[in-house]
Amino acid sequence: MSNPFYKNYSPFKISEIFKSLNLKFSEDNFDNDVLDIKDLVNANDTEITFFHSKKYSEVAKNTKASFCITTNSLKHILPKSCVPIIVENVLVATSKVTSKFYPDAVNDDFDDTAINIDETNFKNKVRCGKNVLIGSNVSIGLNCSIGHNSIIEKNVLIGNNCSVGSNTIIRNTVVNNNVKILDNCVIGKHGFGFFPNNSKNIRYPHIGIVLIEDNCEIGCGSTIDRGSMSNTVIGKNTYLDNQIHIAHNVKIGENSIIAGQVGIAGSSVIGKNVKIGGQAGVSGHLKIGNNVEIGGGSGVIRDIPDNTKVMGYPAKNIREFLKEKK
Amino acid sequence: MSNPFYKNYSPFKISEIFKSLNLKFSEDNFDNDVLDIKDLVNANDTEITFFHSKKYSEVAKNTKASFCITTNSLKHILPKSCVPIIVENVLVATSKVTSKFYPDAVNDDFDDTAINIDETNFKNKVRCGKNVLIGSNVSIGLNCSIGHNSIIEKNVLIGNNCSVGSNTIIRNTVVNNNVKILDNCVIGKHGFGFFPNNSKNIRYPHIGIVLIEDNCEIGCGSTIDRGSMSNTVIGKNTYLDNQIHIAHNVKIGENSIIAGQVGIAGSSVIGKNVKIGGQAGVSGHLKIGNNVEIGGGSGVIRDIPDNTKVMGYPAKNIREFLKEKK
Amino acid sequence: MSNPFYKNYSPFKISEIFKSLNLKFSEDNFDNDVLDIKDLVNANDTEITFFHSKKYSEVAKNTKASFCITTNSLKHILPKSCVPIIVENVLVATSKVTSKFYPDAVNDDFDDTAINIDETNFKNKVRCGKNVLIGSNVSIGLNCSIGHNSIIEKNVLIGNNCSVGSNTIIRNTVVNNNVKILDNCVIGKHGFGFFPNNSKNIRYPHIGIVLIEDNCEIGCGSTIDRGSMSNTVIGKNTYLDNQIHIAHNVKIGENSIIAGQVGIAGSSVIGKNVKIGGQAGVSGHLKIGNNVEIGGGSGVIRDIPDNTKVMGYPAKNIREFLKEKK
Repeated sequence: MSNPFYKNYSPFKISEIFKSLNLKFSEDNFDNDVLDIKDLVNANDTEITFFHSKKYSEVAKNTKASFCITTNSLKHILPKSCVPIIVENVLVATSKVTSKFYPDAVNDDFDDTAINIDETNFKNKVRCGKNVLIGSNVSIGLNCSIGHNSIIEKNVLIGNNCSVGSNTIIRNTVVNNNVKILDNCVIGKHGFGFFPNNSKNIRYPHIGIVLIEDNCEIGCGSTIDRGSMSNTVIGKNTYLDNQIHIAHNVKIGENSIIAGQVGIAGSSVIGKNVKIGGQAGVSGHLKIGNNVEIGGGSGVIRDIPDNTKVMGYPAKNIREFLKEKK
Repeated sequence: MSNPFYKNYSPFKISEIFKSLNLKFSEDNFDNDVLDIKDLVNANDTEITFFHSKKYSEVAKNTKASFCITTNSLKHILPKSCVPIIVENVLVATSKVTSKFYPDAVNDDFDDTAINIDETNFKNKVRCGKNVLIGSNVSIGLNCSIGHNSIIEKNVLIGNNCSVGSNTIIRNTVVNNNVKILDNCVIGKHGFGFFPNNSKNIRYPHIGIVLIEDNCEIGCGSTIDRGSMSNTVIGKNTYLDNQIHIAHNVKIGENSIIAGQVGIAGSSVIGKNVKIGGQAGVSGHLKIGNNVEIGGGSGVIRDIPDNTKVMGYPAKNIREFLKEKK
Repeated sequence: MSNPFYKNYSPFKISEIFKSLNLKFSEDNFDNDVLDIKDLVNANDTEITFFHSKKYSEVAKNTKASFCITTNSLKHILPKSCVPIIVENVLVATSKVTSKFYPDAVNDDFDDTAINIDETNFKNKVRCGKNVLIGSNVSIGLNCSIGHNSIIEKNVLIGNNCSVGSNTIIRNTVVNNNVKILDNCVIGKHGFGFFPNNSKNIRYPHIGIVLIEDNCEIGCGSTIDRGSMSNTVIGKNTYLDNQIHIAHNVKIGENSIIAGQVGIAGSSVIGKNVKIGGQAGVSGHLKIGNNVEIGGGSGVIRDIPDNTKVMGYPAKNIREFLKEKK
C-alpha cells in the first residue's frame, strides 16, 4: 500500500540501515542508496524488503529487491541479486527500518501544524464552529460543516456535504461524500501496534490511512485507528453507533449497521449488509461474510460464513444458541 | 409527546405533503392546510396521522385526523372523515413527513447559535471555565458550574446547583437540580435511528429530549441520546459511571446505580433501585423491574421481573447461573 | 496513604466533628483539636480513626488515636485512651469526616485555577497546541508535548519525554517518564464511589491519586479514576488501548498489555506481564496473578493464579472453555 500522506525520508545508505539495526556493515560491500521499503512482490532493485516466514518462499525466490531483512534459516531462498540482512526478529527489524523511512507514521503527538480555521482559506468555504483547527495537507469539499473545538489534523481529505461534530479529532483520513462524523470521535490515530519488549515496548509505524466511504455515519465517542501496512475502511452507507472502536486494518463492507459499544479487533474483514448488535466484539484477523447478523453482546472468535445469524460467546448459530440457553 | 424545543414549520398544504412523498395529488381534493403530525389518538382535524399496523385498528377507527398515512390493506379501517394517503412503507413516509414539520430534529450538525459565555448574560451568573459556549434557548439555574471547553448547545434547561464538567456537549436536554455531569459526555444528540436503505439510509427525526432528574451523576465519556418519539429519562438520584451508553427512549427509574461501560439499547425501561454491574448490556424494548440486580458483563435479552438478581448471557437467575458454571 | 495534593483543612475541634455527624457533644469532654483522619494503625493521638469490622480488632486494641468512629458493638475493643464516637454506619460517618478534612477531594467540579499555558512559565518549556490550560500545582519535565484543548488541571506532576494528546483532561496524577497519553482521555477524576441513600446518595472523598509509571501508553478515550483511600497505579511499560476504563484503586503491574474497551472494576490488582483481550472485564476486589492471559470478551469474577490463560464468562481455564464450547 502506497500512502501519499507520509513523507519518505530516503535515500538512506545501506550502511545507515545496518547501523540502525546494530549490525556490522562490511566495508567490502558497496554502500548503495536505498529508496524505500516494500513487500517481497513490490520492491524493486533500489529498495529493501523483508522475508519472515516460509510461506512466502515462492515470492521470495523472485524478489527484485536488492536487500532483504530475513533470518539465517531463510536466507538461502533469496535470489543471488538480493543481499540478505540477517536479524533475530524480522518483524521488529522491519518496523525499525520502516520507521527510518517514515518517522512521521510512528509519532502521533499532536499536530503542531494546526492553526485556527479563521486564519486559513477554509474560513469562507466551510460552515464552522468556534475554535476549529486545521492542519497542513487538508482538503475540504463543498457544503461541509465542522463543529466547535474540532481538530482536522494534517493529512485529511474531506469530500462534499460532510458534517463533523464538535470535539472531534481527525488525521490521516480520507472522508468521501455525505458523511457524518459526530462528536468526541478520534479518527486516524495509530493503532495499538508494538512489539512487546521488557521495560520498553517498540512501537511500529502505521503507514495506512482511514478511508470512510460515501454516506457513512460515525457515532459519538467512537475511535477508528488507521492501518499499519494497509488501510482501515468503512464501506459506503455503513452506520456506526456511539462508542465504537474499530482497530487498525479493519475493513467493513457497505450497508452495514453496527450498534453501540461494538469493538472490532485489528485486521478483521467484515462483509456487506452486516448487522452487529450492541457491545458485540469481533476478534482480530477474522473474516465475517456478507449478510451476517451478530447478536448484541456476542463474542466472535471464528470466521463467519455469508448469510449466517450468530450469537453467544463464542458466537455460534443463533438457533443453536437459543436452544441451548433455554 | 409534545416538545417545545423543536420549531414546527407548519402550515403545509396537503399537496406539498403528497409531493414530498412522491405521490400524485388529485386536483379534485381540497388543498387543506395541515398544522402538525400526531399519533392516531392525539391528532385533530387540522392534523395528519399515521397507521401502520392492525393492532392499532381500534384507535384508527376513531381518529379525528383529516389525513392518515397508511397502506392499501389498512385504509378501509379509517373513518370517512379521514383521507388515507397510501404508501408502501408507512414508517418511512411518516419519518419524511415528520422531518418536514420538524427539520431541526433530524439535522444534528453543530449548533451555530452557540457563542462564548462571556458574551452572554450567564457570564456573571454561572461559575465557568475557559471557552464555554452557550447556544440559543438555554436556561441555567443558581449556583451552577460549567467546565472548560464545554458546549451547552441550544435547547437546554439546567436547574440549580448543577455541575457540568469539561469538554462536555449537551443539547435538547432538561437537567433538574443537584445534577453532576462529568467530563467528555455527549448528552441529547439524536439516537441511532434510521431506515436502512441500500446505498443511502434514511434518518428519522428525533423530537424527544433527554430528561435528567434531581441528584443524578453522569460519568465521564458517557453518551445519552435523546428520544425519537418519546423522551430519554434518567430518574432521580440515579448514578451512571464512566463510558456508559444510553440509547434513545430509554427510561431509567430512580435510585439506580449503573457501573462503567454499561450499554442500554433503545426504548428499554429500567425500574427503580436497579443495580447494573460493569459492561452489562440490556437489549432494546425490554422491561427491567424494580430492585433488579444485573451482574457485571451480563447480556439481558428478556424482560426481568421485580426483585430479581440475574447474571450471564443471556442473563438468568444468578443462583442458576453460578450453579451451572461451577 | 498520604497525599500531598489535597489540602488538609484541620485543625477541627472534636465538637465540630460531632456536630457534622449530627451527634450531641457532651460538655463534660475536653474539646480537643483534631489534626487528621487516618486508619487504626497510622493515627496518632492528635488524630481520629475509624473501626467498622471485627476483623480489625487486633489493630483496634492498639490504636494510638484519641478518637474513633465506631459502633456500639465494637467500642469495647478500643483502648481506654481512645474515645469512641458511636454511629450507625461507620463508613458513611468516616466519609463525612474525611470530607471535612479534605473537601477538595470530594468536589470534582472543573478546575478554576486553570489558565492558558501562554500565561504561564511552561510556555517556553513545553511544546504545546492551541488552547492548552494549566492548573495550579503542576510540574512538567523536559521534552514534553501537550495537544490542543487539553487541560492539565491542578495537582499533576509530569516527568520527561511525555506526550499528552488533544482534548485530554488530567488531574491529581503523577506521570513518570516517557509516557504517552492519547486524545480524549480523562485521568484522575474521582471514582464511582458513594453510599447509596434514598433520594440523595452520599459521595465519599477520593484522596488517592493516579500514578502512571515509565514508558506507558494510554489509548484514546480512556478513563482512569484516582483512588479513594489508596492510589490507582499503571505499572511501568504497560500499554492500554482505546476506550479502556480503569476504576479507583486498581493496580496494574508492569509490562502488561490491555486491548480496547476493557474495563477493570474498583480495587482489583493485576500482575505483571498480563495480557487482556478486547472488551474483557475484571470485577472489583480481585487479584489477577503475573503472566496471566485473559481472552477477549471474558468476564473475570474470581481471582486468577499466576501463569494461567483464561477465557469465558465467568472466565475459566482456556482449554476447558474451548473444549466445552466446541
